[in-house]
Amino acid sequence: MNKTDMKVFEKHESEVRSYCRSFPTVFNEAKGSKMWDEDGNEYLDFFSGAGALNYGHNDPKMKEALIDYITNDGITHSLDKATTAKGQFIEQFNEVILKPRGFDYKIMFPGPTGTNTVESALKLARKVTGRTDVISFTNGFHGMTIGSLSVTGNAAKRRGAGVPLNHSVTMPYDRFMDSADTLDYLERFLENGGSGVDLPAAMIVETVQGEGGINVASKEWLQRLESICKRWDILLIIDDVQAGVGRTGSFFSFEEAGITPDIVCMSKSLSGYGVPFAITLLRPDLDIWAPGEHNGTFRGNNHAFITATAALDYWKDDKLEKSVKHKAEITHEYLQKIVENYSELKGEVRGRGLMVGIACGEKELAEKVAEKAFELGLIMETAGPDDEVFKLFPAITIEEADLKKGLEIIEESVKSVVKEPVLS
Amino acid sequence: MNKTDMKVFEKHESEVRSYCRSFPTVFNEAKGSKMWDEDGNEYLDFFSGAGALNYGHNDPKMKEALIDYITNDGITHSLDKATTAKGQFIEQFNEVILKPRGFDYKIMFPGPTGTNTVESALKLARKVTGRTDVISFTNGFHGMTIGSLSVTGNAAKRRGAGVPLNHSVTMPYDRFMDSADTLDYLERFLENGGSGVDLPAAMIVETVQGEGGINVASKEWLQRLESICKRWDILLIIDDVQAGVGRTGSFFSFEEAGITPDIVCMSKSLSGYGVPFAITLLRPDLDIWAPGEHNGTFRGNNHAFITATAALDYWKDDKLEKSVKHKAEITHEYLQKIVENYSELKGEVRGRGLMVGIACGEKELAEKVAEKAFELGLIMETAGPDDEVFKLFPAITIEEADLKKGLEIIEESVKSVVKEPVLS
Amino acid sequence: MNKTDMKVFEKHESEVRSYCRSFPTVFNEAKGSKMWDEDGNEYLDFFSGAGALNYGHNDPKMKEALIDYITNDGITHSLDKATTAKGQFIEQFNEVILKPRGFDYKIMFPGPTGTNTVESALKLARKVTGRTDVISFTNGFHGMTIGSLSVTGNAAKRRGAGVPLNHSVTMPYDRFMDSADTLDYLERFLENGGSGVDLPAAMIVETVQGEGGINVASKEWLQRLESICKRWDILLIIDDVQAGVGRTGSFFSFEEAGITPDIVCMSKSLSGYGVPFAITLLRPDLDIWAPGEHNGTFRGNNHAFITATAALDYWKDDKLEKSVKHKAEITHEYLQKIVENYSELKGEVRGRGLMVGIACGEKELAEKVAEKAFELGLIMETAGPDDEVFKLFPAITIEEADLKKGLEIIEESVKSVVKEPVLS
Amino acid sequence: MNKTDMKVFEKHESEVRSYCRSFPTVFNEAKGSKMWDEDGNEYLDFFSGAGALNYGHNDPKMKEALIDYITNDGITHSLDKATTAKGQFIEQFNEVILKPRGFDYKIMFPGPTGTNTVESALKLARKVTGRTDVISFTNGFHGMTIGSLSVTGNAAKRRGAGVPLNHSVTMPYDRFMDSADTLDYLERFLENGGSGVDLPAAMIVETVQGEGGINVASKEWLQRLESICKRWDILLIIDDVQAGVGRTGSFFSFEEAGITPDIVCMSKSLSGYGVPFAITLLRPDLDIWAPGEHNGTFRGNNHAFITATAALDYWKDDKLEKSVKHKAEITHEYLQKIVENYSELKGEVRGRGLMVGIACGEKELAEKVAEKAFELGLIMETAGPDDEVFKLFPAITIEEADLKKGLEIIEESVKSVVKEPVLS
Repeated sequence: MNKTDMKVFEKHESEVRSYCRSFPTVFNEAKGSKMWDEDGNEYLDFFSGAGALNYGHNDPKMKEALIDYITNDGITHSLDKATTAKGQFIEQFNEVILKPRGFDYKIMFPGPTGTNTVESALKLARKVTGRTDVISFTNGFHGMTIGSLSVTGNAAKRRGAGVPLNHSVTMPYDRFMDSADTLDYLERFLENGGSGVDLPAAMIVETVQGEGGINVASKEWLQRLESICKRWDILLIIDDVQAGVGRTGSFFSFEEAGITPDIVCMSKSLSGYGVPFAITLLRPDLDIWAPGEHNGTFRGNNHAFITATAALDYWKDDKLEKSVKHKAEITHEYLQKIVENYSELKGEVRGRGLMVGIACGEKELAEKVAEKAFELGLIMETAGPDDEVFKLFPAITIEEADLKKGLEIIEESVKSVVKEPVLS
Repeated sequence: MNKTDMKVFEKHESEVRSYCRSFPTVFNEAKGSKMWDEDGNEYLDFFSGAGALNYGHNDPKMKEALIDYITNDGITHSLDKATTAKGQFIEQFNEVILKPRGFDYKIMFPGPTGTNTVESALKLARKVTGRTDVISFTNGFHGMTIGSLSVTGNAAKRRGAGVPLNHSVTMPYDRFMDSADTLDYLERFLENGGSGVDLPAAMIVETVQGEGGINVASKEWLQRLESICKRWDILLIIDDVQAGVGRTGSFFSFEEAGITPDIVCMSKSLSGYGVPFAITLLRPDLDIWAPGEHNGTFRGNNHAFITATAALDYWKDDKLEKSVKHKAEITHEYLQKIVENYSELKGEVRGRGLMVGIACGEKELAEKVAEKAFELGLIMETAGPDDEVFKLFPAITIEEADLKKGLEIIEESVKSVVKEPVLS
Repeated sequence: MNKTDMKVFEKHESEVRSYCRSFPTVFNEAKGSKMWDEDGNEYLDFFSGAGALNYGHNDPKMKEALIDYITNDGITHSLDKATTAKGQFIEQFNEVILKPRGFDYKIMFPGPTGTNTVESALKLARKVTGRTDVISFTNGFHGMTIGSLSVTGNAAKRRGAGVPLNHSVTMPYDRFMDSADTLDYLERFLENGGSGVDLPAAMIVETVQGEGGINVASKEWLQRLESICKRWDILLIIDDVQAGVGRTGSFFSFEEAGITPDIVCMSKSLSGYGVPFAITLLRPDLDIWAPGEHNGTFRGNNHAFITATAALDYWKDDKLEKSVKHKAEITHEYLQKIVENYSELKGEVRGRGLMVGIACGEKELAEKVAEKAFELGLIMETAGPDDEVFKLFPAITIEEADLKKGLEIIEESVKSVVKEPVLS
Repeated sequence: MNKTDMKVFEKHESEVRSYCRSFPTVFNEAKGSKMWDEDGNEYLDFFSGAGALNYGHNDPKMKEALIDYITNDGITHSLDKATTAKGQFIEQFNEVILKPRGFDYKIMFPGPTGTNTVESALKLARKVTGRTDVISFTNGFHGMTIGSLSVTGNAAKRRGAGVPLNHSVTMPYDRFMDSADTLDYLERFLENGGSGVDLPAAMIVETVQGEGGINVASKEWLQRLESICKRWDILLIIDDVQAGVGRTGSFFSFEEAGITPDIVCMSKSLSGYGVPFAITLLRPDLDIWAPGEHNGTFRGNNHAFITATAALDYWKDDKLEKSVKHKAEITHEYLQKIVENYSELKGEVRGRGLMVGIACGEKELAEKVAEKAFELGLIMETAGPDDEVFKLFPAITIEEADLKKGLEIIEESVKSVVKEPVLS
């Protein structure tokens, strides 16, 4: 194989590209938690495709199922026609995930990406309630198409819209204010008839905010949010695109809080293998769509049905769940130790399950730690409004040894960064 | 294999599903222009995934390349990191498509679906010009997320938005009016300072409207549109999601008109294999994106890079192009004959290349023809604001014999339908 | 009296001021069709407060009634409390105007300006129909607050909004295109389900556009517009703020066309005396307002009730109406002669009744004619998207001798302007 | 004089009428703080035209000046031409109001009503900053046209818009929350880059909210608000339409806080006599309007110039100011006593200067007190999101004896209401 010249990207790919700037090498192979570039360098992946590779790269069982399917000329593309692969996915999802948890959601295939599921959820909530506004939360991230961007908090991303983003109201996420319970504010706005906040169709919220800086909503906050929604007849949409599929330990990230959202958005790791896939789960009585009222060319990605069905085998017992909890404990303890040992970071450990990070009081240090880690062979990104959080997203199936190795690299990176004289 | 019960879809899948209602059987295998259901029934596919399967199902060369890639644990999911597969696609696209046609577009990976590329194009046009409005055209279809839906004409789809769709102005497409040149209207609105139409950032147009009813813009109309855009410094966006990738004969649908759009949106058949993939092509001087200003989890779908690179081999010479033209002639002639022989249809042949259809003056007949054709083993859908057009989208690689067989089925369906006593 | 220094305006008044730039002198007295400045210079007023002084300045009967009322400490300001003056106005308006014309409108007092009545009409139309969009017409002018500006065509005024103006669609006014009937265009958009034009709540239209350049909608066009509205169950709003109160000959400008709008907006000359006043007339079954749902501090301007009641005495017989028709004929003939005699103008006579003007093919000449006329003692403004029309708005009560004198000044101004060498 | 039949209003006036329902009699004469109906009944006016009659009804000096002006055929209507009356107003306003307070605002005449000045302020702020959003506050009231309604809090009024109200964000007013400083909340949203609140063009605020329920912003809160605006380069707009012109004691309501707004909106009592009039005051460097970019037919209401100029004589010394303070003390003490003596009200005294009221914990009592007071000959309205506040707006020129008489009537009304058995 000839080596790929990095210049091909600089010359022909749009300036909008970003991760290839943070991780400037040409990757060509991957397995589990490891990636290799064209020079044969090995990297530990603590990024996991921003949450799209919770099961690691190229899981052997999914790989086998996928190769079989392709070899036998299974249907690849089917829009929303009925196919064997789709039928199997629906049944497996119902049997393995919904039924045991007492849920009876209808499944919608809204197109294969996170923003497709969010747009479909917002549309449906507005159609069902006849209201236009949606409440979203500070530092929420829901996607880059205009509907999803309207409920996304990040100022730089919002500016990219080129049009004013309307029909949404941002309320403070849990712990956005030190001085007050943020739901007191929200409730006051709802109950005061002069508050300027019109009764919304829905609230959309992540239980843990990934892009927003690994902010965790407490169980109590989520429970009270659910009860506020019920009281005011507002639909509760959980965007579980990033926090779902085991990232926080359980399949849905909201299981711990014991709440039942009206609509759930899922994508990223749902296919298991990293191929595009998304679903929207709906309370059955909300399913008032007209046929084709929302559609999309790639809503029937059968390769994804195949790998997703295989991936759900991980959830037939509680082994994975337990192992995530165990690895999460190791991780939190390790990070806590780092924060204590390297006080120059002014660090704060954040997160739940294997969706964790350290928010750096010295904001620019987060990027430096991630850069150093990459030099040392670990892939990790930053998050938060000022990129002040470095974010650990190891595969939830990672070997304990790899996890520890990764944590050590991170510690070494921190050590190196806090000792560097800061120039600028 | 156990047979799939259709009830699984009725019970668990959202009411929004549509094609599984028109084609009520469970498909499980496909090859070239053929599909088979679980009962072993064979169908000729004149639908081609609404234009996502221009090369037919499971093309052997692409299949081989994809299986090789998966077998060797090639990177599957990479966001916008640099990968070998992506580098190869970029180079192949540049060498085989752009260079020979004298284009020097930058390539943007906006997420893997048609609506992703349209949303990215609209954002960029607004950012570049600092203007908010976009002109779109009657019966245009550009996608289902709020940004794309705002420039989509269909009333039923628009109502699904649940919010007013703004920042867009609809102008009449070529031949929307019998009595006037529609660009006279457009130009009058632009040049009159009291027209209420604010100077737009861009115009977005399909050269042939698929969903809108197989409406063809003439060469002259497109050329004049380009010159109007130049005169007023408005960006011209061609949405080539459905009409592109050979559907009309040439790779880009606008080659015949000899125009050079500022931005081109591509998706559907671009991956060749029916897996989700989209790109946005930009005039290099428009590429003022900040890194990450638009992003998306599945913008680096490496399976699609692999199959798309293989698919582009079809364009290394003019064989495919010539064969499409030949098959298009056969098709147009055949349809013309149908229209003449079955005057009860009040039919009008529409289309360009292998993007063709018959608009039925007796509107409800179109659906009936498609239903009958399905009974006779041919898959075909309807389009147009009242579903009054039955639409032929055979694979552009279809064998001539299969094409003729399909046309015969269509004729038989028409014959059967026009002879039925109409009950209602 | 000390003379007023023009510098006081330059120093303290906002740059937004405009007419004091076109007519740079300090006015202090007025009577009928005459105005005098502080130096005692006399001017013939062919501007009439942009249509707010149809009965001329300081009409003696209205003046007497107003002084009596003030002297006797009649209520001045009453919001929407019941007052004697308001009761009398309502009865007089009903007896003199509505009943004889067979109308049974309810009267709403929406605040005292044109934009108040337009905003109230748009709100009500949206409330009644549950739809958001409103169709307006090219070169329509309806006011400067955001609701009214959204249905106003002028690009410069629209830019002043500072926010995108939405929920409106502009359709071509009568004769906006030379080559086609503009209502064919409108109807095509309504009947085609893929036109991107959502069914609107209302259409808002002026029968003669003042600000837009003295564009006259024909009787037939208005009648067809009414029937289109009926067919599609769209409310027809006539904005008679400028063309109403006798300006075109009849009290309402739409009487000639024999149509019955669902809502009528009136202001400007309604008070007769030039004091702020507006009403909205509603078909009784549309009057579904909740009490106070629209309000405004000055909706009960009793001085206006008094003068408006006196002004309506003019409409108790047909003398005024006949005299306007007579003077209109004189005016149209005279202007026609000017156009013929001074072909350098490339002039076109426009208008109906005493709402007339000459559109200059050499656009910049219109301003020059108006400037010259001011030098010669005549006040007249320009209109149209490029200020290409000079506009004659004499009082409808003007003495014939004054009318002729004014026309002579205009001819002299034209003569002088077309003979000047054009420098620029 | 024949008596007016109340039925004329019921039959011919729109259902939107409101105050004629609360005060069901036909008024016909007024002087100072007294009004008389057609039956000769006398009423003490503690309503003052919702703040438009701060100097009482038909002030003799203004009356004399107005009659003189009308008698002498002074210009009545002038759009924005220069007139003697306008020049005198501008000079008087500058000499008596602006200069002594150290302000150098430019004066804009935006049309004669409160909503006109607010719309002009919002437009200018957006034009100057190039930003679209405006921050307003809970329970703020700014007018009924779409621009002003977008920054108004009241849910019922907002629903009347018929379109979504956008480009605004509502923040909590001072003391909206018991438990927290509301500006902490506001500032947190501004400083956090993921808050979803885009940097606004302006904040618009009333120092005391009238319609919102007599909510008073503290000096410290206003000062901090000003410093937040400065820090973030956001324009501060004070809407002094209701609280200005002496209502709180000083001419501008914000003098006590010592702040200097960038833009000030004034109307209501500015003309002194209750005739329609409004101005917008602008920091001179913000005055980047193009001529005529905002306009309005009644922006030059010369009757208002005359009475407003006479009214400003009250501000040539501090007599009025001192007397308002004295009367305010009497009022606050009296109300405090009522609250203490009639604990059934669960009352809370609110207000500043002569803009005062009692918020009733038993919300429905406020309306009952106002009804009873009307029976006893006192006119007073209610305010607040649930009409839970009865609101005292006596003329600021009221005789002390009349003030006391009014307070006694209120006490008697309260006494009567709290003793009534509540039926419903």
